[in-house]
Amino acid sequence: MISKKMENMVANSSAIRAMFEEGNRLAGIYGAENVYDFSLGNPNVPAPEAVKAAIRGILDEEDPVVLHGYTNSNAGYQDVRQAVADSLNARFQTAFDAKNIIMTVGAAGGLNVILKSLLNPGDEVIAFAPYFGEYRSYTSNYDGVLVEISPNTVDFQPKLDEFQEKITSKTKVVIVNTPNNPTGVVYSLETIKKMAAIMEAKQKEFGTEIYLVSDEPYRELAYDGVEVPYLTKYYANTVVGYSYSKSLSLPGERIGYLVIPDEAADSEKLISAANVANRILGFVNAPTLQQKIVKKCLNEKTDISYYDRNRETLYNGLKELGFECIKPEGAFYLFVKSPVADEKEFCAAAKKYNILIVPGSSFGCPGYVRLAYCVSYETIVNSLPKFADLAAEYK
Amino acid sequence: MISKKMENMVANSSAIRAMFEEGNRLAGIYGAENVYDFSLGNPNVPAPEAVKAAIRGILDEEDPVVLHGYTNSNAGYQDVRQAVADSLNARFQTAFDAKNIIMTVGAAGGLNVILKSLLNPGDEVIAFAPYFGEYRSYTSNYDGVLVEISPNTVDFQPKLDEFQEKITSKTKVVIVNTPNNPTGVVYSLETIKKMAAIMEAKQKEFGTEIYLVSDEPYRELAYDGVEVPYLTKYYANTVVGYSYSKSLSLPGERIGYLVIPDEAADSEKLISAANVANRILGFVNAPTLQQKIVKKCLNEKTDISYYDRNRETLYNGLKELGFECIKPEGAFYLFVKSPVADEKEFCAAAKKYNILIVPGSSFGCPGYVRLAYCVSYETIVNSLPKFADLAAEYK
Repeated sequence: MISKKMENMVANSSAIRAMFEEGNRLAGIYGAENVYDFSLGNPNVPAPEAVKAAIRGILDEEDPVVLHGYTNSNAGYQDVRQAVADSLNARFQTAFDAKNIIMTVGAAGGLNVILKSLLNPGDEVIAFAPYFGEYRSYTSNYDGVLVEISPNTVDFQPKLDEFQEKITSKTKVVIVNTPNNPTGVVYSLETIKKMAAIMEAKQKEFGTEIYLVSDEPYRELAYDGVEVPYLTKYYANTVVGYSYSKSLSLPGERIGYLVIPDEAADSEKLISAANVANRILGFVNAPTLQQKIVKKCLNEKTDISYYDRNRETLYNGLKELGFECIKPEGAFYLFVKSPVADEKEFCAAAKKYNILIVPGSSFGCPGYVRLAYCVSYETIVNSLPKFADLAAEYK
Repeated sequence: MISKKMENMVANSSAIRAMFEEGNRLAGIYGAENVYDFSLGNPNVPAPEAVKAAIRGILDEEDPVVLHGYTNSNAGYQDVRQAVADSLNARFQTAFDAKNIIMTVGAAGGLNVILKSLLNPGDEVIAFAPYFGEYRSYTSNYDGVLVEISPNTVDFQPKLDEFQEKITSKTKVVIVNTPNNPTGVVYSLETIKKMAAIMEAKQKEFGTEIYLVSDEPYRELAYDGVEVPYLTKYYANTVVGYSYSKSLSLPGERIGYLVIPDEAADSEKLISAANVANRILGFVNAPTLQQKIVKKCLNEKTDISYYDRNRETLYNGLKELGFECIKPEGAFYLFVKSPVADEKEFCAAAKKYNILIVPGSSFGCPGYVRLAYCVSYETIVNSLPKFADLAAEYK
């Protein structure tokens, strides 16, 4: 009785769901401490203490009718949006105003809002493999067509020659995600500038507008001082989707924002459309208490050194065991080459050691597996002997 | 550059937006206390004090990693869902389990989730005029077709003869909203039983399943001891969409739930689909802190006497002035007959007295206007002389 589209979605979702249930089953048998669950991007670092203080302060200061009420605009509180704009301008030398900021139910909410605002049925959305598998669902929600650029497994920067070839007159959106899920790679400034030049040329060639949607939940998770370019500065038709899920460890609270700059084509109309889409998709507005928390915590950061220690330990440990992997510069994922062509077989083998990892096919890149290292340091350390046993199987 | 669908939505949304801006403009000129804004269903009653206490307690008790983290299931925290199920079972003698409850981003989020789960393009969704205008957008989101049953302006119970005629083999969903926005009418038990019998007969006739979606943000706002029937008890294929927006005055926080009972056709699959829809539409899960608040406040209620005093004062005041209106038994709206056929003309006339009201055409019922009396008592009292001036124009 469910819709045909959802029939397919439910069928495709069962793999991840099965893994989740398997994790619970294993934890029940062996104890949670003996299960090495690298499957989910759920931060293990608590929200900064400032979040708690912010909530207490807000409860003391704000009128509950306003605090918990609908916001006047579906885009959110004016003061919060102005504060976000000011903070971005100070950090990235941009020139946003409150009107360019739309508070959203996380980045996932924001991406749905912008895709609904932009896509006509049949419009093409380009994503660079490996990419977050949900882009496929979000695109399908609005009857768009996801066009994949095959992975460059040398350094996991996007394949720009293939990109250039695959842009058509139907290309409406290009999604990038840097620092990247699942590789941890940060797209270089050189890459970004080349991408922008290609898109500009193609816009001229086809007489179309191509929007670059930058999905940025991992922006603040960059290591070794690497710089993550702010994309609106390099390409006019850029829309940014941001989330506080990782930067403030608030993934369950569903708070983020979209940036639609004045420079974007049809900017004013696009902002109106995003407001309406936010409403009619049922988000209505981003959760109001969380909006106020964000305003108070704009200068707070998660404990990046925690993830960095995990990154170094897991990366070095796996390399020593002979696994192939590029060293990520951002996010909290390692993308490891499977020692056998069918990486699902490798994931199944890992499960024997209570190690849970996600096949690269879920990200459009078979032959690899993703490890989310946003787990406790103990999990990392205790998993390494198990990885050694696993590696021994492939010697 | 925005999508064709959104072009239309933006154009149609401008009326309400214009009214909002007009309210702000008037408040700027005359002072907020001299503007009688009955346009929005944004509660003026603060959230119960228990909400504040609940938040403080949760911050003290819960591990922030769990509190603000993704929930294990997209349906929400198991303990919260069980508590909601238990509370419903105690109140309505139902037999729900945690698995029947899906926590959602308000009722608007829940309705989108269930419509995405059910509708194939071209499927029909029946709504009884006057109805909440957003049903049209939610249905259009999934390429459904909204079929209107014309209003019964005698007592605003649904026209069941017309309902029976308009059910077709394409009818997938029937939406009811009781207590009703915009009339405040509560559908009687007799009405519900007759509706159920009609749908059951039509299911047999067409060999289809027809889902009754009960949109219940106003369930707790019922006056004079009137009973609001719990619909899952009278029709097996019922899905309930609930919201704490009005019952706990938390509209901006975006928290509610869906109930998908075991008795509903294909229940297990529908629950799976709703979980996936919750995820891929970008909600991911209902805001986690709000889920925990709800669990602690299941026995809390908004101050219904506040709304009741507004109801009596405004209803009696307008009747004395000669306006025609049925006395609402629930919600916080009065649906008043326009003294002229074109109610938009009447709304424009009201604006001259700084009275802001919404045309009934927005609810599929021209010739009437909606007044949201979830405002301060002072606004009600002070508006009555202005309504008197307005009435005088039509003597």
